[in-house]
Amino acid sequence: MQAADALVVFTPSGRRGRFPIGSSLLQAGRSLGVDIDSVCGGRGICGRCQVLVSEGEFAKHGLVSSAQNLSPVSAVEQEYGASNAPLAEGRRLSCCAQVQGDVVIDVPSSSQVHKQVVRKEAEAHDIHLDPMVRLYFVQVQEPDMHEPSGDLRRLEDALEFEWGLTDLSCDIVVVQQLQTALREGQWSVTVAVHAGKQIMAVWPRLHEKAFGMAVDVGSTTIAAHLCDLSSGDVVASAGVMNPQIRFGEDLMSRVSYVMMNPGGEREMTAAVREALNTLAAEVAQRAGVQPTDILEATFVGNPIMHHLLLGINPVELGGAPFALATDRAVRLWASEIDLAVHRNARIYVLPCIAGHVGADTAGVILAERPDLDSPVTLLVDVGTNAEIVLGNNQRMLACSSPTGPAFEGAQISCGQRAAPGAIERVRIDPATLEPRYKVIGCDLWSDDPGFAQAVAGTGVTGVCGSGIIEALAEMYLAGIIRHEGTIDGNLAARTPRVQADGRTFCYELAPATAEKPALRILQNDVRAIQLGKAALYAGVRLLMERMGVDKVDRIRLAGAFGSHIDVKYAMVLGMIPDCVLSNVSSAGNAAGTGARIALLDKGARKVIEDLVRRVEKIETAVEPRFQEFFVEAMAIPHLSDPFERLQDAVRLPERVAVVTEQNARSRRGARRG
Amino acid sequence: MQAADALVVFTPSGRRGRFPIGSSLLQAGRSLGVDIDSVCGGRGICGRCQVLVSEGEFAKHGLVSSAQNLSPVSAVEQEYGASNAPLAEGRRLSCCAQVQGDVVIDVPSSSQVHKQVVRKEAEAHDIHLDPMVRLYFVQVQEPDMHEPSGDLRRLEDALEFEWGLTDLSCDIVVVQQLQTALREGQWSVTVAVHAGKQIMAVWPRLHEKAFGMAVDVGSTTIAAHLCDLSSGDVVASAGVMNPQIRFGEDLMSRVSYVMMNPGGEREMTAAVREALNTLAAEVAQRAGVQPTDILEATFVGNPIMHHLLLGINPVELGGAPFALATDRAVRLWASEIDLAVHRNARIYVLPCIAGHVGADTAGVILAERPDLDSPVTLLVDVGTNAEIVLGNNQRMLACSSPTGPAFEGAQISCGQRAAPGAIERVRIDPATLEPRYKVIGCDLWSDDPGFAQAVAGTGVTGVCGSGIIEALAEMYLAGIIRHEGTIDGNLAARTPRVQADGRTFCYELAPATAEKPALRILQNDVRAIQLGKAALYAGVRLLMERMGVDKVDRIRLAGAFGSHIDVKYAMVLGMIPDCVLSNVSSAGNAAGTGARIALLDKGARKVIEDLVRRVEKIETAVEPRFQEFFVEAMAIPHLSDPFERLQDAVRLPERVAVVTEQNARSRRGARRG
Repeated sequence: MQAADALVVFTPSGRRGRFPIGSSLLQAGRSLGVDIDSVCGGRGICGRCQVLVSEGEFAKHGLVSSAQNLSPVSAVEQEYGASNAPLAEGRRLSCCAQVQGDVVIDVPSSSQVHKQVVRKEAEAHDIHLDPMVRLYFVQVQEPDMHEPSGDLRRLEDALEFEWGLTDLSCDIVVVQQLQTALREGQWSVTVAVHAGKQIMAVWPRLHEKAFGMAVDVGSTTIAAHLCDLSSGDVVASAGVMNPQIRFGEDLMSRVSYVMMNPGGEREMTAAVREALNTLAAEVAQRAGVQPTDILEATFVGNPIMHHLLLGINPVELGGAPFALATDRAVRLWASEIDLAVHRNARIYVLPCIAGHVGADTAGVILAERPDLDSPVTLLVDVGTNAEIVLGNNQRMLACSSPTGPAFEGAQISCGQRAAPGAIERVRIDPATLEPRYKVIGCDLWSDDPGFAQAVAGTGVTGVCGSGIIEALAEMYLAGIIRHEGTIDGNLAARTPRVQADGRTFCYELAPATAEKPALRILQNDVRAIQLGKAALYAGVRLLMERMGVDKVDRIRLAGAFGSHIDVKYAMVLGMIPDCVLSNVSSAGNAAGTGARIALLDKGARKVIEDLVRRVEKIETAVEPRFQEFFVEAMAIPHLSDPFERLQDAVRLPERVAVVTEQNARSRRGARRG
Repeated sequence: MQAADALVVFTPSGRRGRFPIGSSLLQAGRSLGVDIDSVCGGRGICGRCQVLVSEGEFAKHGLVSSAQNLSPVSAVEQEYGASNAPLAEGRRLSCCAQVQGDVVIDVPSSSQVHKQVVRKEAEAHDIHLDPMVRLYFVQVQEPDMHEPSGDLRRLEDALEFEWGLTDLSCDIVVVQQLQTALREGQWSVTVAVHAGKQIMAVWPRLHEKAFGMAVDVGSTTIAAHLCDLSSGDVVASAGVMNPQIRFGEDLMSRVSYVMMNPGGEREMTAAVREALNTLAAEVAQRAGVQPTDILEATFVGNPIMHHLLLGINPVELGGAPFALATDRAVRLWASEIDLAVHRNARIYVLPCIAGHVGADTAGVILAERPDLDSPVTLLVDVGTNAEIVLGNNQRMLACSSPTGPAFEGAQISCGQRAAPGAIERVRIDPATLEPRYKVIGCDLWSDDPGFAQAVAGTGVTGVCGSGIIEALAEMYLAGIIRHEGTIDGNLAARTPRVQADGRTFCYELAPATAEKPALRILQNDVRAIQLGKAALYAGVRLLMERMGVDKVDRIRLAGAFGSHIDVKYAMVLGMIPDCVLSNVSSAGNAAGTGARIALLDKGARKVIEDLVRRVEKIETAVEPRFQEFFVEAMAIPHLSDPFERLQDAVRLPERVAVVTEQNARSRRGARRG
């Protein structure tokens, strides 16, 4: 006699099969390879395996599906609903609901192990969730004098029996805690397994907290995102100033500090690690969890931050040939970098690419994946150095260009970091040469009524990086700055805004008040930006020439600068090559996103390690062409179109190319190359 | 035109081949798979690859060999001889000597990587030298701005190119030290590689010091041997008292201490680790090296010592069901047990077998390898518990038996540890009932002239474990103790040596002096030994019954007790089963030897892990038969032969079985079983 069975169809996978009446939906799904999550192993306590019954006639599948074709809601499900949130209408725990007749079962993405994490606005791709660390709940056999075996062996037997995990190793701290956990949990424990191979944590009973931290160690700011490893969600974020700033504002001054103070690298390592512990505590607190619930952390950073984080003296990076200690990904224990999270937490540091192209750029590449497509993508992460990547599915090239800190508002007389009170937007009337501006923290323009009252709290304190770019571009468009970068002193006769400043001239953006001196753009400020933008552009041109392309199809600007800058103005100044405006966008904190991807998707680690090896590394310092491009790019591009048309162009929303003489020259150069 | 070549024959391997004139002997040997050591990779600086030219006509090989058929001694070899010891007559560095004609080349065992380490007296087998940690000297490519790559990658490239090592990982501490080492060594470094996979240490230039430490953590004594990992030689040994003694003399009192003092396990863990650091420093100093030259350590110990060493609370081992935290081998970093050796040194702890049968027994099994042979071997390691293994190439069984500390001289009124002044040998004249004895530290018997002066320094302070056994056996043979263990009070009439002691009698071994009370064997002392020996014998009988054998072919007594006891007396008392005397011997510190084998031969680790899994573990506490055997074994065996014949027998040197009624009973029992 054949046992009665029924047809079960799972959506969205479409997998289907006949199962004996009484089979649980979880068993049925798993036997078909349907991706249904479960931590508790089908005991009805974790609630991860929820599914929805689809009601109605499904001609395509040849069945009529109904909630009636499942066993009634069980006591275990009622208990689950009572001690957690009640199950939503139509939802069942697939480990409890048994097949009684034909059904179509929908597995919502929240119940899938390998779900996609929906991307945030600036991010290029969804993240495939497949974390290195997973939790497993098991019931362990009690010890028996007639069959002596260690508690660990019986735990491993349970993990093999219930979850199919084999050849496991175990951290000694887990061995130390295992016996207490087993007895406290009455032989039920949850373990965290790293990479499917290493038991790294144990808790009595069901434990569902597994978090990871993705960290971008910038020279100025350290930013951390705490992610729930089961959902992939960012549950808290925080940032702190990099305390290494007290050893030097920019990277090279920190390396100099080490050169002048042997052992100084240890102070800086200690400082950054202390800041990381503060951050870990802060994100944990914001998410309402313990730092010890953090089981893994991933890191990106430029080469010097990378080395200092890892306790490697960065002095070799301070001079030619700029040798990295390692260009491999680094795998560590949290204790090896003194990180106060779970004792056995693991660390993954993305690989550096070259002496000036760091793990942060690896993070940008991983977030953006220019290798997946044929259009040529330019990735630019602007800091003290601009790290530049150019590539597509054929080739990828990277270099670093010494832009200096001007784009971050440093070395600009009125410059400041992006903070409330800083000017971030500037418009100059080409007729009157009068400026108007907006400051961070206020939605009004400076010529709007009520502006003065609105900014009374902070005042107008300086000009941030994106404000400088706009100010210079608007000054150029208004004719205040000439092609070669000098402020036109003749205009002093036309407007009091243009003022003599020693042997040069300057432009007054905001007049002095009782409390503050005037904010003025000096000739030297223009020069600083020119040097920076020439370096950036020269780096891009070098990569374009090497790749043999005369245009880029897409530009993604990573980092804080990229998020705030108005790309039209960057093109006016000739910072970046010509590109259809709609294809130029901010990539947000792409480096940090890369760290988050490496945290949430273990397969991404091999991807970025392979990509980094394939990247063609260009050292600008030894490229004579870089110097040529740099000199060429010092001037501000001639406007090839009549002044007014360009004015219109930059005010048109999108799909309008800003064609400059320089860009035309670039194309000629590339054809020659 | 064919290049000229010559025939090269290597002995003792017999491998042979033709090689172009000018080939180095090292190249030739390696291409034939001849085992020739080299750390420096053929640069003529390590001297490990020395070979001997065999002179003369070798008809078998069809050639005439001569030192003339090699290139003349090179400048490199002269330099090596000048800065080290000059090369012995006929010796050449195989990396320098080039083939010029037919030669027979002998590779001495000292130049082989996989040499045999000649065993010490008590050891069962030679050790195959194949350590986990090996040193490699390499010349690393300098960094180049035109081809940016990390120093680590170039190191790995060199290791692959020169030594064929691939897929290496690298400890972060090595990454931290690598750049300095490379530059200090002018791009020549030596690295230590663990398991052929993990770069664990780096030094500038050639570094030939690689040591390992094998440690036996006993409840009373901790003993360490420092081994040169390139020769396998023990270069220094040292022992210290286990400082845990202050928490309790025997194992169970230490577990009780933890039960009474929560957290007490941490104190004991700290104490043993501190002692290990003292030991490591001491063996290093004795060998004239640094503790940081110790790159690996292996450990054995009973389950409670094992757990306390690893920071595992041993409280579960203090009561049924005696569950081990783990019965697997444990691999760690030295830092995880706070061991002050090389920062990246690795630890290997042999597996425990069962709740009462520890990693020390695993060490004994590895040293003795009863599984290699068909004769049934009994291995006994006597301490507070006797750990007993019985087996051959078919089966292996193990149990632990609670002998108590009497065999170590504890709980005996006149007992003491084996130390100068302790009685270790006893003879009693059956006619006069007068004793004579020897003490540790003196070669004279107590009735020899000059004995009193010889022991004036220490005096006669007590009786150690082996002395107690001899005293009781001699008392029995002299008729002072009866079959059931009572001291015969009737003899008080015959000799003042037998004295009343409350309601029982005692035997005076040494009379009182002005300084010290008399040394007397009390009735309670006899009972304590009876309990211990009955437990031991019952454990052995249980295993014999389980294995279905009525005799053992070989007995090996491990540990200090086994080294000092006269096995004839152990048989007289019925401690161990009947066996041909020549097949009963001391195995020395077999547990420590096992640790040393695991240190020197990485393949042995898998061997012992597999063996331990195969061992049939018997828990005496749940075996009713154990209680029966125990009760049966309380009495001292009847002498089946006339008194005088046995007296002769035990004085005959070897190959004379002591046949006792009990042993005969054992056989009957085994036939029944």
